[in-house]
Amino acid sequence: MANYSGYPAPNYAPSAPPMPDSYSAGRPPTEGYAHPPPPRSYSHPYPSPWASGAGGAGGSYFPPGTPPEVIRSFQAVDRDQSGFIEESELQAALSSAYHKFSIRTVRLLMFLFKNPSNPSKMGPVEFAALWGCLGQWQAIFYRFDRDRSGKIDSVELKDALISLGYAVPPSVIQVLISNYTDVYGRGALNFDNFVECGMIVKGLTEKFKERDTRYTGSATFSYDDFLLMIIPFIVP
Amino acid sequence: MANYSGYPAPNYAPSAPPMPDSYSAGRPPTEGYAHPPPPRSYSHPYPSPWASGAGGAGGSYFPPGTPPEVIRSFQAVDRDQSGFIEESELQAALSSAYHKFSIRTVRLLMFLFKNPSNPSKMGPVEFAALWGCLGQWQAIFYRFDRDRSGKIDSVELKDALISLGYAVPPSVIQVLISNYTDVYGRGALNFDNFVECGMIVKGLTEKFKERDTRYTGSATFSYDDFLLMIIPFIVP
Repeated sequence: MANYSGYPAPNYAPSAPPMPDSYSAGRPPTEGYAHPPPPRSYSHPYPSPWASGAGGAGGSYFPPGTPPEVIRSFQAVDRDQSGFIEESELQAALSSAYHKFSIRTVRLLMFLFKNPSNPSKMGPVEFAALWGCLGQWQAIFYRFDRDRSGKIDSVELKDALISLGYAVPPSVIQVLISNYTDVYGRGALNFDNFVECGMIVKGLTEKFKERDTRYTGSATFSYDDFLLMIIPFIVP
Repeated sequence: MANYSGYPAPNYAPSAPPMPDSYSAGRPPTEGYAHPPPPRSYSHPYPSPWASGAGGAGGSYFPPGTPPEVIRSFQAVDRDQSGFIEESELQAALSSAYHKFSIRTVRLLMFLFKNPSNPSKMGPVEFAALWGCLGQWQAIFYRFDRDRSGKIDSVELKDALISLGYAVPPSVIQVLISNYTDVYGRGALNFDNFVECGMIVKGLTEKFKERDTRYTGSATFSYDDFLLMIIPFIVP
């Protein structure tokens, strides 16, 4: 049995903690993550115009039950109402609710949550999925950032990844964290760095699992498939 | 038989063309690449102080026959004479002779040509190997940049990679070049982009070949090895 699961570990928390003071200080209040994700039974009394079919020329709509603030965030940046947003628009939408992500992390998120029929843009379905995923990840980041410093270290990264269902060995943690060090040379990741590292592990694990469907812990690739699979992570 | 070779193709040119006017215009003259690499029989009448053992506290020396300009370039940036240079120093050394490489490309070069005993720095042996490799790659870049625009397109990238010994399918070329487009959306790589793309192919091919020693075109990886091998390319 391989030592990754890809599924939430038992201590996975579906709802997010309130935004700590150290994160909201100095920023305008947002609705983005202070609200816990909706329960499974959540539904709108009336469908949102974006969920019901008036959602832009792209013909893509939000899944039923998408929280209104997610739809508002998408609409706020999709100014031409095309139903798709580009990487700079995604960066703006996420920055207002979560964190000022680097364009590198945003590209990685675009790549991992892409619309298969339009890989260079993101539609409502992918946006809602990404939003929910980041909510879960932010909850876990806050849980392990115990001193509310806004940073987690290598041990906390390892535990946070286990909480997300990815049991990676210490050697991988060291490689992941090597570029994110504080002035003392110790590993220190802010939420942007954490999302970048975690999404790399998540994306590579999913690619690996596509070739290891029986969970043996090893997978075989052809040379062409190997390059095609890996290069988008390197030049996202 | 796999469709990569890893060895220079028959049309590999060991010596570099003169620097075209469009590249040297506006920049101070350098000795870096206008000189062809030395022939195999090249030797210094007297060993350089760096080649003979006075080369810094690190105890690393240039290989016999290293051209003087390579040693001078290294010395010019290794101000503390430690015998090792960091990424910003490598960037400075290469910029004076080759091209103003992005720090991302420099990090990739540091990773691919690293000193196994000191991976965060580069010693004379690795520096000389990198210098020679870039000379070969620059010659090939110039050969395919037929209009001397300073850019090559996707077809030329494919042919250039074949000249370097890497026969990659068009789908891989498209993924590689997708982030390097001109105002018309056409693929257009300058020398920095070309080195980044080519070094990614070179590095991944070498990793793949380590697991495909019989050139079958497929390779098997464990999950941990897969992550350890790929992640340094993504967060170099």
